[in-house]
Amino acid sequence: MTRWKLTIEYGGSGFCGWQRQAHDLSVQQVLEEAITKFSGETVTLHVAGRTDAGVHARAQVAHFDLTKDTDADTVRDAVNFHAKPHLVAVLHAEKVPDDFHARFSAIKRSYRYQIICRRAPLALLAGQAWHLPKPLELAPMQEAAALLIGNHDFSTFRAVNCQSNSPVKTLDALEIIGEGEHITFTTTARSFLYHQVRNMVGTLALVGSGQWDINEFKAAFAARDRRKGGPTAPAHGLFFWETTYPQI
Amino acid sequence: MTRWKLTIEYGGSGFCGWQRQAHDLSVQQVLEEAITKFSGETVTLHVAGRTDAGVHARAQVAHFDLTKDTDADTVRDAVNFHAKPHLVAVLHAEKVPDDFHARFSAIKRSYRYQIICRRAPLALLAGQAWHLPKPLELAPMQEAAALLIGNHDFSTFRAVNCQSNSPVKTLDALEIIGEGEHITFTTTARSFLYHQVRNMVGTLALVGSGQWDINEFKAAFAARDRRKGGPTAPAHGLFFWETTYPQI
Repeated sequence: MTRWKLTIEYGGSGFCGWQRQAHDLSVQQVLEEAITKFSGETVTLHVAGRTDAGVHARAQVAHFDLTKDTDADTVRDAVNFHAKPHLVAVLHAEKVPDDFHARFSAIKRSYRYQIICRRAPLALLAGQAWHLPKPLELAPMQEAAALLIGNHDFSTFRAVNCQSNSPVKTLDALEIIGEGEHITFTTTARSFLYHQVRNMVGTLALVGSGQWDINEFKAAFAARDRRKGGPTAPAHGLFFWETTYPQI
Repeated sequence: MTRWKLTIEYGGSGFCGWQRQAHDLSVQQVLEEAITKFSGETVTLHVAGRTDAGVHARAQVAHFDLTKDTDADTVRDAVNFHAKPHLVAVLHAEKVPDDFHARFSAIKRSYRYQIICRRAPLALLAGQAWHLPKPLELAPMQEAAALLIGNHDFSTFRAVNCQSNSPVKTLDALEIIGEGEHITFTTTARSFLYHQVRNMVGTLALVGSGQWDINEFKAAFAARDRRKGGPTAPAHGLFFWETTYPQI
Protein backbone atom coordinates (compact mmCIF):
# COMPACT_ATOMS: atom_id res chain seq x y z
CA MET A 1 0.00 0.00 0.00
CA THR A 2 1.38 3.39 -1.00
CA ARG A 3 0.11 6.76 0.12
CA TRP A 4 0.02 9.31 -2.73
CA LYS A 5 -0.07 13.09 -2.44
CA LEU A 6 -1.59 14.99 -5.37
CA THR A 7 -1.25 18.72 -6.09
CA ILE A 8 -4.32 19.77 -8.06
CA GLU A 9 -5.49 22.76 -10.11
CA TYR A 10 -9.17 23.20 -10.96
CA GLY A 11 -11.67 25.72 -12.23
CA GLY A 12 -14.63 25.86 -9.86
CA SER A 13 -17.35 26.77 -12.36
CA GLY A 14 -18.15 23.25 -13.54
CA PHE A 15 -18.46 21.66 -10.11
CA CYS A 16 -20.69 21.58 -7.06
CA GLY A 17 -17.49 22.04 -5.05
CA TRP A 18 -14.78 19.69 -3.84
CA GLN A 19 -16.92 17.25 -1.89
CA ARG A 20 -18.94 14.41 -3.37
CA GLN A 21 -22.67 14.97 -3.60
CA ALA A 22 -25.37 12.56 -4.70
CA HIS A 23 -26.79 14.49 -7.64
CA ASP A 24 -24.09 16.87 -8.78
CA LEU A 25 -20.55 16.65 -10.10
CA SER A 26 -17.73 17.33 -7.63
CA VAL A 27 -13.97 17.58 -8.10
CA GLN A 28 -13.60 14.67 -5.67
CA GLN A 29 -15.83 12.42 -7.80
CA VAL A 30 -13.99 13.22 -11.05
CA LEU A 31 -10.61 12.44 -9.46
CA GLU A 32 -11.68 9.34 -7.54
CA GLU A 33 -13.28 7.88 -10.66
CA ALA A 34 -10.18 8.70 -12.72
CA ILE A 35 -8.00 6.90 -10.16
CA THR A 36 -10.32 3.88 -10.26
CA LYS A 37 -10.22 3.80 -14.07
CA PHE A 38 -6.44 3.55 -14.20
CA SER A 39 -5.87 1.38 -11.12
CA GLY A 40 -9.01 -0.72 -10.77
CA GLU A 41 -9.08 0.29 -7.09
CA THR A 42 -11.76 2.19 -5.20
CA VAL A 43 -10.16 5.03 -3.28
CA THR A 44 -11.14 7.92 -1.02
CA LEU A 45 -9.43 11.28 -1.45
CA HIS A 46 -8.70 13.39 1.63
CA VAL A 47 -8.24 17.07 0.85
CA ALA A 48 -6.35 19.97 2.45
CA GLY A 49 -9.20 22.44 2.04
CA ARG A 50 -12.71 21.61 0.90
CA THR A 51 -13.95 24.28 -1.48
CA ASP A 52 -17.52 25.37 -2.30
CA ALA A 53 -19.15 25.43 -5.73
CA GLY A 54 -17.48 28.06 -7.91
CA VAL A 55 -14.26 28.25 -5.87
CA HIS A 56 -11.10 27.55 -7.87
CA ALA A 57 -7.82 25.94 -6.86
CA ARG A 58 -4.30 26.76 -7.99
CA ALA A 59 -2.58 24.13 -5.82
CA GLN A 60 -5.05 22.09 -3.81
CA VAL A 61 -3.58 19.04 -2.07
CA ALA A 62 -5.22 15.64 -1.53
CA HIS A 63 -4.00 12.16 -0.59
CA PHE A 64 -5.16 8.59 -1.15
CA ASP A 65 -3.87 5.03 -0.69
CA LEU A 66 -3.20 2.65 -3.56
CA THR A 67 -2.26 -1.04 -3.52
CA LYS A 68 -1.06 -1.02 -7.13
CA ASP A 69 2.68 -0.50 -7.52
CA THR A 70 3.32 2.42 -9.88
CA ASP A 71 5.37 5.60 -10.25
CA ALA A 72 4.60 9.30 -9.81
CA ASP A 73 4.60 10.24 -13.51
CA THR A 74 2.16 7.44 -14.29
CA VAL A 75 -0.20 8.49 -11.50
CA ARG A 76 -0.20 12.12 -12.67
CA ASP A 77 -0.61 11.33 -16.37
CA ALA A 78 -3.17 8.54 -15.94
CA VAL A 79 -5.40 10.54 -13.60
CA ASN A 80 -5.24 13.53 -15.97
CA PHE A 81 -6.09 11.32 -18.93
CA HIS A 82 -9.18 9.86 -17.26
CA ALA A 83 -10.30 13.21 -15.76
CA LYS A 84 -10.81 14.69 -19.22
CA PRO A 85 -12.67 16.78 -20.31
CA HIS A 86 -13.26 18.27 -16.87
CA LEU A 87 -11.19 21.31 -15.84
CA VAL A 88 -9.18 19.44 -13.21
CA ALA A 89 -5.45 18.83 -13.55
CA VAL A 90 -3.06 16.90 -11.34
CA LEU A 91 0.07 19.09 -11.41
CA HIS A 92 2.21 16.75 -9.34
CA ALA A 93 1.98 13.28 -7.76
CA GLU A 94 4.33 12.15 -5.01
CA LYS A 95 4.75 9.14 -2.72
CA VAL A 96 4.46 10.17 0.94
CA PRO A 97 4.82 8.37 4.29
CA ASP A 98 1.75 6.58 5.66
CA ASP A 99 1.28 9.19 8.38
CA PHE A 100 0.97 12.08 5.91
CA HIS A 101 -2.54 13.51 5.88
CA ALA A 102 -3.48 16.23 3.37
CA ARG A 103 -5.81 17.87 5.86
CA PHE A 104 -4.34 17.18 9.30
CA SER A 105 -0.64 17.52 8.40
CA ALA A 106 -1.08 20.95 6.79
CA ILE A 107 0.58 23.68 8.83
CA LYS A 108 -0.42 26.57 6.56
CA ARG A 109 -3.07 27.27 3.96
CA SER A 110 -3.28 30.25 1.63
CA TYR A 111 -6.21 31.61 -0.30
CA ARG A 112 -6.28 34.37 -2.88
CA TYR A 113 -9.33 36.49 -3.65
CA GLN A 114 -9.54 38.51 -6.85
CA ILE A 115 -11.67 41.63 -7.45
CA ILE A 116 -11.99 43.70 -10.63
CA CYS A 117 -13.38 47.20 -10.03
CA ARG A 118 -14.73 48.78 -13.20
CA ARG A 119 -17.95 49.74 -14.90
CA ALA A 120 -17.56 47.26 -17.77
CA PRO A 121 -18.48 43.62 -17.21
CA LEU A 122 -15.74 40.97 -17.23
CA ALA A 123 -14.85 39.13 -20.41
CA LEU A 124 -11.37 37.59 -19.98
CA LEU A 125 -11.74 37.01 -16.24
CA ALA A 126 -15.45 36.16 -16.27
CA GLY A 127 -16.10 33.59 -13.53
CA GLN A 128 -12.65 34.10 -11.99
CA ALA A 129 -13.06 37.43 -10.19
CA TRP A 130 -15.65 39.41 -8.24
CA HIS A 131 -16.82 42.27 -10.43
CA LEU A 132 -17.55 45.54 -8.64
CA PRO A 133 -18.70 48.56 -10.64
CA LYS A 134 -16.95 51.12 -8.40
CA PRO A 135 -13.34 51.52 -7.24
CA LEU A 136 -12.15 50.43 -3.79
CA GLU A 137 -9.61 52.44 -1.80
CA LEU A 138 -6.61 50.30 -0.89
CA ALA A 139 -5.27 52.18 2.14
CA PRO A 140 -8.38 51.90 4.37
CA MET A 141 -8.73 48.20 3.48
CA GLN A 142 -5.07 47.60 4.34
CA GLU A 143 -5.52 49.42 7.66
CA ALA A 144 -8.56 47.29 8.48
CA ALA A 145 -6.87 44.08 7.33
CA ALA A 146 -3.96 44.70 9.70
CA LEU A 147 -6.39 44.48 12.63
CA LEU A 148 -7.21 40.88 11.68
CA ILE A 149 -3.64 39.60 11.88
CA GLY A 150 -2.89 37.43 14.91
CA ASN A 151 -4.93 35.28 17.26
CA HIS A 152 -8.56 36.41 17.45
CA ASP A 153 -12.14 35.31 17.74
CA PHE A 154 -13.33 35.46 14.11
CA SER A 155 -17.05 34.86 14.82
CA THR A 156 -17.93 37.97 12.77
CA PHE A 157 -16.56 36.22 9.69
CA ARG A 158 -17.81 32.70 10.47
CA ALA A 159 -20.63 31.10 8.49
CA VAL A 160 -23.53 29.95 10.69
CA ASN A 161 -23.07 26.35 9.54
CA CYS A 162 -19.32 26.29 10.31
CA GLN A 163 -18.33 23.01 11.98
CA SER A 164 -15.10 24.21 13.58
CA ASN A 165 -14.84 23.61 17.34
CA SER A 166 -13.77 27.16 18.06
CA PRO A 167 -14.12 30.57 16.40
CA VAL A 168 -10.58 31.43 17.51
CA LYS A 169 -7.98 31.26 14.76
CA THR A 170 -4.56 32.76 14.07
CA LEU A 171 -4.33 34.76 10.88
CA ASP A 172 -0.71 34.93 9.70
CA ALA A 173 -1.10 37.27 6.73
CA LEU A 174 -3.66 39.23 4.75
CA GLU A 175 -1.99 41.20 2.00
CA ILE A 176 -3.98 43.47 -0.30
CA ILE A 177 -2.38 44.53 -3.56
CA GLY A 178 -3.89 46.80 -6.18
CA GLU A 179 -2.82 47.16 -9.77
CA GLY A 180 -5.21 49.45 -11.58
CA GLU A 181 -8.68 47.98 -11.51
CA HIS A 182 -7.35 44.63 -10.28
CA ILE A 183 -7.22 43.98 -6.51
CA THR A 184 -5.96 40.76 -4.91
CA PHE A 185 -6.24 39.63 -1.31
CA THR A 186 -3.82 36.88 -0.26
CA THR A 187 -4.28 35.39 3.18
CA THR A 188 -2.52 32.65 5.13
CA ALA A 189 -3.35 30.73 8.31
CA ARG A 190 -3.03 27.22 9.67
CA SER A 191 -6.75 26.89 9.08
CA PHE A 192 -9.79 29.04 8.41
CA LEU A 193 -13.39 29.01 9.57
CA TYR A 194 -16.06 28.16 7.01
CA HIS A 195 -16.52 31.16 4.65
CA GLN A 196 -13.97 33.15 6.66
CA VAL A 197 -12.02 34.42 3.65
CA ARG A 198 -15.13 35.39 1.67
CA ASN A 199 -16.64 37.09 4.73
CA MET A 200 -13.43 39.01 5.47
CA VAL A 201 -13.21 40.17 1.84
CA GLY A 202 -16.89 41.15 1.69
CA THR A 203 -16.49 43.18 4.88
CA LEU A 204 -13.20 44.79 3.82
CA ALA A 205 -14.90 45.82 0.57
CA LEU A 206 -17.37 47.89 2.64
CA VAL A 207 -14.36 49.76 4.05
CA GLY A 208 -12.75 50.13 0.61
CA SER A 209 -15.93 51.56 -0.90
CA GLY A 210 -16.28 54.09 1.93
CA GLN A 211 -19.58 52.63 3.20
CA TRP A 212 -17.83 51.82 6.49
CA ASP A 213 -15.04 53.67 8.27
CA ILE A 214 -12.33 51.93 10.27
CA ASN A 215 -14.25 52.30 13.54
CA GLU A 216 -17.30 50.59 12.13
CA PHE A 217 -15.05 47.76 10.97
CA LYS A 218 -13.42 47.54 14.43
CA ALA A 219 -16.81 47.43 16.11
CA ALA A 220 -18.07 44.70 13.80
CA PHE A 221 -14.97 42.56 14.42
CA ALA A 222 -15.18 43.11 18.18
CA ALA A 223 -18.88 42.14 18.20
CA ARG A 224 -17.99 38.47 17.42
CA ASP A 225 -21.32 38.21 15.67
CA ARG A 226 -21.77 37.23 12.04
CA ARG A 227 -24.79 39.50 11.76
CA LYS A 228 -22.55 42.52 12.41
CA GLY A 229 -20.17 41.62 9.53
CA GLY A 230 -20.41 42.54 5.86
CA PRO A 231 -21.72 40.35 3.05
CA THR A 232 -20.08 37.13 1.87
CA ALA A 233 -18.02 37.85 -1.25
CA PRO A 234 -19.03 35.56 -4.15
CA ALA A 235 -17.40 32.13 -4.49
CA HIS A 236 -16.04 32.66 -8.02
CA GLY A 237 -13.44 35.26 -6.91
CA LEU A 238 -11.79 32.79 -4.52
CA PHE A 239 -8.79 30.55 -5.23
CA PHE A 240 -7.36 27.90 -2.92
CA TRP A 241 -3.77 29.04 -3.40
CA GLU A 242 -1.35 26.71 -1.59
CA THR A 243 -0.65 24.51 1.42
CA THR A 244 2.49 24.10 3.48
CA TYR A 245 3.49 20.83 5.15
CA PRO A 246 6.39 20.11 7.49
CA GLN A 247 9.40 18.65 5.66
CA ILE A 248 8.36 15.10 4.82
CA MET B 1 -22.85 62.87 -36.48
CA THR B 2 -20.33 61.85 -33.86
CA ARG B 3 -17.44 59.43 -34.30
CA TRP B 4 -17.01 57.12 -31.32
CA LYS B 5 -13.91 55.15 -30.34
CA LEU B 6 -14.45 52.01 -28.28
CA THR B 7 -11.82 50.08 -26.32
CA ILE B 8 -12.97 46.48 -26.11
CA GLU B 9 -12.09 43.31 -24.18
CA TYR B 10 -13.29 39.91 -25.37
CA GLY B 11 -12.72 36.22 -24.93
CA GLY B 12 -12.21 34.59 -28.31
CA SER B 13 -13.65 31.16 -27.56
CA GLY B 14 -17.28 31.96 -28.24
CA PHE B 15 -16.78 33.70 -31.58
CA CYS B 16 -15.84 32.99 -35.19
CA GLY B 17 -13.44 35.93 -34.84
CA TRP B 18 -13.85 39.68 -35.07
CA GLN B 19 -15.34 39.93 -38.54
CA ARG B 20 -18.99 39.33 -39.42
CA GLN B 21 -19.77 36.02 -41.09
CA ALA B 22 -23.05 34.80 -42.50
CA HIS B 23 -23.55 31.70 -40.37
CA ASP B 24 -21.50 32.20 -37.25
CA LEU B 25 -21.33 34.67 -34.38
CA SER B 26 -18.63 37.35 -34.52
CA VAL B 27 -17.56 40.02 -32.04
CA GLN B 28 -18.44 42.63 -34.67
CA GLN B 29 -22.01 41.36 -34.96
CA VAL B 30 -22.60 41.32 -31.20
CA LEU B 31 -21.35 44.90 -30.84
CA GLU B 32 -23.07 46.32 -33.94
CA GLU B 33 -26.37 44.79 -32.87
CA ALA B 34 -25.92 46.12 -29.33
CA ILE B 35 -25.30 49.62 -30.72
CA THR B 36 -28.42 49.35 -32.90
CA LYS B 37 -30.52 48.20 -29.94
CA PHE B 38 -29.67 51.25 -27.86
CA SER B 39 -29.54 53.87 -30.63
CA GLY B 40 -31.93 52.62 -33.32
CA GLU B 41 -29.15 53.25 -35.85
CA THR B 42 -27.42 50.75 -38.13
CA VAL B 43 -23.67 51.17 -37.81
CA THR B 44 -20.47 49.62 -39.14
CA LEU B 45 -17.56 49.07 -36.78
CA HIS B 46 -14.01 49.56 -38.07
CA VAL B 47 -11.42 47.74 -36.02
CA ALA B 48 -7.71 48.25 -35.28
CA GLY B 49 -6.83 44.56 -35.69
CA ARG B 50 -9.15 41.87 -36.98
CA THR B 51 -8.73 38.70 -34.96
CA ASP B 52 -9.36 35.07 -35.88
CA ALA B 53 -11.65 32.62 -34.11
CA GLY B 54 -10.26 31.84 -30.66
CA VAL B 55 -8.06 34.95 -30.41
CA HIS B 56 -8.76 37.14 -27.39
CA ALA B 57 -8.50 40.89 -26.90
CA ARG B 58 -7.43 42.85 -23.86
CA ALA B 59 -7.81 46.30 -25.47
CA GLN B 60 -9.05 46.09 -29.03
CA VAL B 61 -10.08 49.42 -30.58
CA ALA B 62 -12.94 50.08 -33.00
CA HIS B 63 -14.80 53.16 -34.21
CA PHE B 64 -18.27 53.93 -35.58
CA ASP B 65 -20.42 56.96 -36.40
CA LEU B 66 -23.64 57.79 -34.61
CA THR B 67 -26.25 60.45 -35.33
CA LYS B 68 -27.83 60.20 -31.88
CA ASP B 69 -26.53 62.74 -29.39
CA THR B 70 -25.33 60.96 -26.27
CA ASP B 71 -22.42 60.78 -23.82
CA ALA B 72 -19.51 58.40 -23.36
CA ASP B 73 -20.77 56.67 -20.21
CA THR B 74 -24.11 55.98 -21.85
CA VAL B 75 -22.48 54.50 -24.94
CA ARG B 76 -20.26 52.20 -22.83
CA ASP B 77 -23.01 51.09 -20.46
CA ALA B 78 -25.73 50.67 -23.10
CA VAL B 79 -23.55 48.62 -25.45
CA ASN B 80 -22.43 46.42 -22.54
CA PHE B 81 -26.03 45.94 -21.45
CA HIS B 82 -27.17 44.82 -24.90
CA ALA B 83 -24.07 42.68 -25.57
CA LYS B 84 -24.96 40.35 -22.67
CA PRO B 85 -24.44 37.44 -22.17
CA HIS B 86 -21.57 37.31 -24.65
CA LEU B 87 -18.03 37.72 -23.32
CA VAL B 88 -17.47 41.14 -24.89
CA ALA B 89 -17.02 44.28 -22.78
CA VAL B 90 -16.63 47.90 -23.83
CA LEU B 91 -14.03 49.19 -21.36
CA HIS B 92 -14.10 52.76 -22.57
CA ALA B 93 -16.03 54.94 -25.05
CA GLU B 94 -14.74 58.29 -26.28
CA LYS B 95 -15.73 60.94 -28.82
CA VAL B 96 -13.03 61.37 -31.45
CA PRO B 97 -12.51 63.69 -34.44
CA ASP B 98 -14.07 62.68 -37.76
CA ASP B 99 -10.69 61.82 -39.27
CA PHE B 100 -9.86 59.28 -36.57
CA HIS B 101 -9.79 55.74 -37.97
CA ALA B 102 -9.30 52.74 -35.66
CA ARG B 103 -7.35 50.88 -38.32
CA PHE B 104 -5.59 53.54 -40.39
CA SER B 105 -4.72 55.97 -37.59
CA ALA B 106 -3.03 53.30 -35.45
CA ILE B 107 0.73 53.83 -35.21
CA LYS B 108 1.47 50.77 -33.05
CA ARG B 109 -0.20 47.49 -32.27
CA SER B 110 0.83 45.00 -29.59
CA TYR B 111 -0.02 41.34 -29.24
CA ARG B 112 0.73 39.00 -26.38
CA TYR B 113 1.08 35.24 -26.74
CA GLN B 114 0.86 32.96 -23.71
CA ILE B 115 2.35 29.46 -23.39
CA ILE B 116 2.16 27.08 -20.42
CA CYS B 117 4.83 24.36 -20.49
CA ARG B 118 3.97 21.43 -18.24
CA ARG B 119 2.84 17.82 -18.36
CA ALA B 120 -0.54 18.49 -16.74
CA PRO B 121 -3.37 19.86 -18.88
CA LEU B 122 -4.65 23.39 -18.23
CA ALA B 123 -7.55 24.02 -15.90
CA LEU B 124 -7.50 27.69 -14.85
CA LEU B 125 -6.06 28.94 -18.15
CA ALA B 126 -7.83 26.45 -20.41
CA GLY B 127 -8.55 28.18 -23.74
CA GLN B 128 -6.30 31.14 -22.89
CA ALA B 129 -2.83 29.67 -23.41
CA TRP B 130 -1.00 27.21 -25.66
CA HIS B 131 -0.29 24.08 -23.65
CA LEU B 132 3.04 22.39 -24.37
CA PRO B 133 3.98 19.24 -22.45
CA LYS B 134 7.73 20.02 -22.39
CA PRO B 135 9.75 23.02 -21.18
CA LEU B 136 11.10 25.68 -23.57
CA GLU B 137 14.53 27.27 -23.06
CA LEU B 138 14.22 31.04 -22.85
CA ALA B 139 17.75 32.11 -23.85
CA PRO B 140 17.80 30.54 -27.35
CA MET B 141 14.33 31.91 -28.08
CA GLN B 142 15.40 35.39 -26.94
CA GLU B 143 18.50 35.17 -29.15
CA ALA B 144 16.37 34.17 -32.16
CA ALA B 145 13.72 36.80 -31.40
CA ALA B 146 16.38 39.54 -31.45
CA LEU B 147 17.05 38.70 -35.10
CA LEU B 148 13.48 39.64 -35.99
CA ILE B 149 13.65 43.19 -34.61
CA GLY B 150 13.81 45.90 -37.28
CA ASN B 151 12.79 46.20 -40.92
CA HIS B 152 12.69 42.81 -42.65
CA ASP B 153 10.92 40.67 -45.20
CA PHE B 154 8.72 38.47 -42.99
CA SER B 155 7.54 36.09 -45.74
CA THR B 156 8.62 33.10 -43.61
CA PHE B 157 5.97 34.08 -41.07
CA ARG B 158 3.26 35.20 -43.50
CA ALA B 159 0.09 33.17 -44.04
CA VAL B 160 -0.49 32.22 -47.68
CA ASN B 161 -3.80 34.09 -47.73
CA CYS B 162 -2.31 37.34 -46.32
CA GLN B 163 -3.70 40.39 -48.11
CA SER B 164 -0.93 42.83 -47.23
CA ASN B 165 0.73 44.58 -50.20
CA SER B 166 4.23 43.79 -49.01
CA PRO B 167 5.89 41.18 -46.78
CA VAL B 168 8.23 43.88 -45.45
CA LYS B 169 7.36 45.10 -41.96
CA THR B 170 9.18 46.77 -39.08
CA LEU B 171 9.09 44.84 -35.84
CA ASP B 172 9.65 47.20 -32.90
CA ALA B 173 9.76 44.72 -30.05
CA LEU B 174 9.48 41.01 -29.27
CA GLU B 175 10.02 40.39 -25.59
CA ILE B 176 9.96 36.88 -24.15
CA ILE B 177 9.51 36.52 -20.41
CA GLY B 178 9.42 33.29 -18.45
CA GLU B 179 8.07 32.77 -14.98
CA GLY B 180 8.19 29.10 -14.11
CA GLU B 181 6.02 27.15 -16.52
CA HIS B 182 4.46 30.36 -17.86
CA ILE B 183 6.04 32.04 -20.92
CA THR B 184 4.75 35.24 -22.53
CA PHE B 185 5.74 36.80 -25.84
CA THR B 186 4.87 40.49 -26.25
CA THR B 187 5.43 42.04 -29.65
CA THR B 188 4.85 45.49 -31.11
CA ALA B 189 4.82 46.88 -34.65
CA ARG B 190 2.90 49.45 -36.67
CA SER B 191 1.21 46.50 -38.35
CA PHE B 192 1.63 42.75 -38.77
CA LEU B 193 1.18 40.30 -41.63
CA TYR B 194 -1.68 37.81 -41.38
CA HIS B 195 -0.74 35.11 -38.81
CA GLN B 196 2.67 36.73 -38.32
CA VAL B 197 2.62 36.60 -34.52
CA ARG B 198 1.38 33.01 -34.36
CA ASN B 199 3.93 31.93 -36.98
CA MET B 200 6.80 33.69 -35.19
CA VAL B 201 5.79 32.07 -31.88
CA GLY B 202 5.40 28.62 -33.46
CA THR B 203 8.85 28.91 -35.02
CA LEU B 204 10.50 30.29 -31.88
CA ALA B 205 9.04 27.35 -29.95
CA LEU B 206 11.07 25.02 -32.22
CA VAL B 207 14.18 26.87 -31.05
CA GLY B 208 13.07 26.81 -27.41
CA SER B 209 12.45 23.07 -27.48
CA GLY B 210 15.86 22.37 -29.03
CA GLN B 211 14.43 20.97 -32.28
CA TRP B 212 16.09 23.85 -34.14
CA ASP B 213 19.36 25.65 -33.39
CA ILE B 214 19.87 29.35 -34.04
CA ASN B 215 21.36 28.72 -37.47
CA GLU B 216 18.35 26.76 -38.62
CA PHE B 217 16.17 29.63 -37.42
CA LYS B 218 18.35 32.16 -39.29
CA ALA B 219 18.18 30.11 -42.48
CA ALA B 220 14.38 29.79 -42.27
CA PHE B 221 13.99 33.55 -41.77
CA ALA B 222 16.38 34.33 -44.61
CA ALA B 223 14.54 31.94 -46.96
CA ARG B 224 11.51 34.30 -47.08
CA ASP B 225 9.37 31.24 -47.63
CA ARG B 226 6.48 30.22 -45.37
CA ARG B 227 7.23 26.55 -46.07
CA LYS B 228 10.60 26.95 -44.33
CA GLY B 229 9.05 28.36 -41.15
CA GLY B 230 7.72 26.49 -38.12
CA PRO B 231 4.08 25.69 -37.37
CA THR B 232 1.39 28.27 -36.63
CA ALA B 233 0.87 28.49 -32.88
CA PRO B 234 -2.80 27.93 -31.93
CA ALA B 235 -5.18 30.90 -31.90
CA HIS B 236 -6.28 30.52 -28.27
CA GLY B 237 -2.88 31.58 -26.86
CA LEU B 238 -3.04 34.96 -28.63
CA PHE B 239 -4.29 38.26 -27.19
CA PHE B 240 -4.69 41.52 -29.05
CA TRP B 241 -3.00 43.60 -26.37
CA GLU B 242 -3.12 47.30 -27.22
CA THR B 243 -3.02 49.99 -29.88
CA THR B 244 -1.30 53.36 -29.91
CA TYR B 245 -2.66 56.42 -31.73
CA PRO B 246 -1.11 59.84 -32.17
CA GLN B 247 -2.33 62.37 -29.58
CA ILE B 248 -5.89 63.12 -30.64
